[in-house]
Amino acid sequence: MIISEKLERLREMKPLVHNITNVVVTNFTANGLLALGASPVMAYAKEEVEEMASISGAVVLNIGTLNKEVIESMILAGKAANQKGVPVLLDPVGAGATRFRTDMANKILEEVQIDVIRGNAAEIANLLGIDWQIKGVDAGDGKVDAAEIALQAAQKWNCAAVVTGKNDAASDGKDTYLIQNGHPMMTQVTGTGCLLTSVIGAYCAVDSNHLEAAVAALTSYGIAAELAAEKTGEVGPGSFQIQFLNELANLTSEEIAQKAIFTKQQ
Amino acid sequence: MIISEKLERLREMKPLVHNITNVVVTNFTANGLLALGASPVMAYAKEEVEEMASISGAVVLNIGTLNKEVIESMILAGKAANQKGVPVLLDPVGAGATRFRTDMANKILEEVQIDVIRGNAAEIANLLGIDWQIKGVDAGDGKVDAAEIALQAAQKWNCAAVVTGKNDAASDGKDTYLIQNGHPMMTQVTGTGCLLTSVIGAYCAVDSNHLEAAVAALTSYGIAAELAAEKTGEVGPGSFQIQFLNELANLTSEEIAQKAIFTKQQ
Amino acid sequence: MIISEKLERLREMKPLVHNITNVVVTNFTANGLLALGASPVMAYAKEEVEEMASISGAVVLNIGTLNKEVIESMILAGKAANQKGVPVLLDPVGAGATRFRTDMANKILEEVQIDVIRGNAAEIANLLGIDWQIKGVDAGDGKVDAAEIALQAAQKWNCAAVVTGKNDAASDGKDTYLIQNGHPMMTQVTGTGCLLTSVIGAYCAVDSNHLEAAVAALTSYGIAAELAAEKTGEVGPGSFQIQFLNELANLTSEEIAQKAIFTKQQ
Repeated sequence: MIISEKLERLREMKPLVHNITNVVVTNFTANGLLALGASPVMAYAKEEVEEMASISGAVVLNIGTLNKEVIESMILAGKAANQKGVPVLLDPVGAGATRFRTDMANKILEEVQIDVIRGNAAEIANLLGIDWQIKGVDAGDGKVDAAEIALQAAQKWNCAAVVTGKNDAASDGKDTYLIQNGHPMMTQVTGTGCLLTSVIGAYCAVDSNHLEAAVAALTSYGIAAELAAEKTGEVGPGSFQIQFLNELANLTSEEIAQKAIFTKQQ
Repeated sequence: MIISEKLERLREMKPLVHNITNVVVTNFTANGLLALGASPVMAYAKEEVEEMASISGAVVLNIGTLNKEVIESMILAGKAANQKGVPVLLDPVGAGATRFRTDMANKILEEVQIDVIRGNAAEIANLLGIDWQIKGVDAGDGKVDAAEIALQAAQKWNCAAVVTGKNDAASDGKDTYLIQNGHPMMTQVTGTGCLLTSVIGAYCAVDSNHLEAAVAALTSYGIAAELAAEKTGEVGPGSFQIQFLNELANLTSEEIAQKAIFTKQQ
Repeated sequence: MIISEKLERLREMKPLVHNITNVVVTNFTANGLLALGASPVMAYAKEEVEEMASISGAVVLNIGTLNKEVIESMILAGKAANQKGVPVLLDPVGAGATRFRTDMANKILEEVQIDVIRGNAAEIANLLGIDWQIKGVDAGDGKVDAAEIALQAAQKWNCAAVVTGKNDAASDGKDTYLIQNGHPMMTQVTGTGCLLTSVIGAYCAVDSNHLEAAVAALTSYGIAAELAAEKTGEVGPGSFQIQFLNELANLTSEEIAQKAIFTKQQ
């Protein structure tokens, strides 16, 4: 898998990524996608989401501040994307924290064919019915490892599954990759997980192999975080957040080729 | 037109700018208006928008993440502002990208007397019925130039019209100005167009000549972007965004007098 | 009152703070809470707010961009928190600016037992029925001082009350403290008041004495602002905002012990 070329492709094609996401991360998501080289759009109204999804390169559904109306819009957008062959991503923020979040994430998974699901271990484990404590929207500790959860999720929903945390894993139900890029400072900035899902969406828009797209996204995103932390980690999370956007914009294929660390699980 | 004095007037009067805007740019819009010297308020509920609009110096309607309810609120706010003589601005984000956006922007234009419309060439052209491709909320390429579109828009809706992109133009249907301040880095930060519309609103709140207010806003805004890009353009879009807010706050009448570039079209 | 230890306790316990807040400040609030060491969650849907409030360390209700539906959710969340003994905070943004805001803030105060109310002098005075001019969401000038308003508010609603502005005061209806930390640059960044309310919530989550929690929050927050202004005050509000997040993360007990300025009113 030559992942360093995928970013160049993304920047050339500048795919439109349609986000139906939460109110906490909209600005950061838009700026992160712009920095990387994609073209973000946010559109939520049920009167327009099908049309917007149909012309997009990827559709990202994020339930972080869900309500019934936006879930309806997500299902409309997801179905329209399914019909057009546009990849659909799901970020089930806080699944397991409240019954409503678990139920709505499951409803989306039933009504829409999801191409990539991305969450922390607690969120994905809860949707798989594995017992796992979750505190608000933060993953707690659990017993099953990220790779195993990703594999099970990919098989259950017939999609690529990405589980992030201390260790990141991506699986398509057959092959599973472990990715070791990233930095703990990411946990001090809200929305780094949400933006990651949208970045995977941008890669999926230019790569029909969604597992490879996910690995490319995870490594490049993680490398940008490492570079940002090198320069600003000691200064604090405010500066890190800004430098992270800078690094997403400045990231080169050469840096990716040099710094990416991922292994296929045997 | 002596535009350098207008910023001083704005800072003295600190006008209240009532924004009904999209969820992507609310924070950036509020911080940008505060930095420049205006007083932002966001209020969306139909139970209060008329009252808030009535006490404001300008009302800015931005359809970036529209839904039916917020369009209702926009029309209520717009009509209340019309009655009180408070200038109303429209930013038809993504008009042309979906039928719903085009329809709702047209509905606002029918029901409210808009004082200034501001959009990219694609958005305004689409509302004028000129065939123009739009990709999400980004302007694509078209055949008619910005000044021509601004002129037509100003005449059609009997308002000032501002068309921004590689070239910026502002017209009141009689006189048309071309403005050359600004910097390409602005396209790498989400909401720079949206904030500009609100900044034009702040200038309109202290200047009954809306064309002059628009030219003053476009030049000062563009100069702040140039100054920010000088200092941070190489660093990346994260740093640029922050420095841009700094420059809006630090901008002086002298800098505006020295650096403003605008010409009246013959 | 030994306030310097309270921040350590907060960082150890990392309390979950459930915010139902306005769209302008969601990102800044989440990042500010994360920086300080708390765990933010935003959840608004009436189907889940009771469950989320029940597992939280504090619930923060902020009416900055209110609508009828979100007020319903706030009341549900507040009542659930009351039942579980979870502290509830109210930030009545813009109370007095429109009748709707005043009415809805009063409705919350009637239906929910609020543990801490935090606002500027105009907002709290208006809710108390004291005549006070308000311009949008900014406090104007009034005749009664902050300490007097805080005392009256605490007595009326049987809670701790925090009034912020040029001078900050906190009262539980018996004791009243004046706090002198802080910096004028805070008024140039949107949401510094809103984030403060959430930070008081984080302190209340680890301290059953809400007046002490408020004083600890006000001093530590103010000191972080002073440190940020020392380093970036001249640069501008963009840089200040970022440095403020850095300082919230880096603030130590020693700095608080050295720099905190508060006096009990005689």
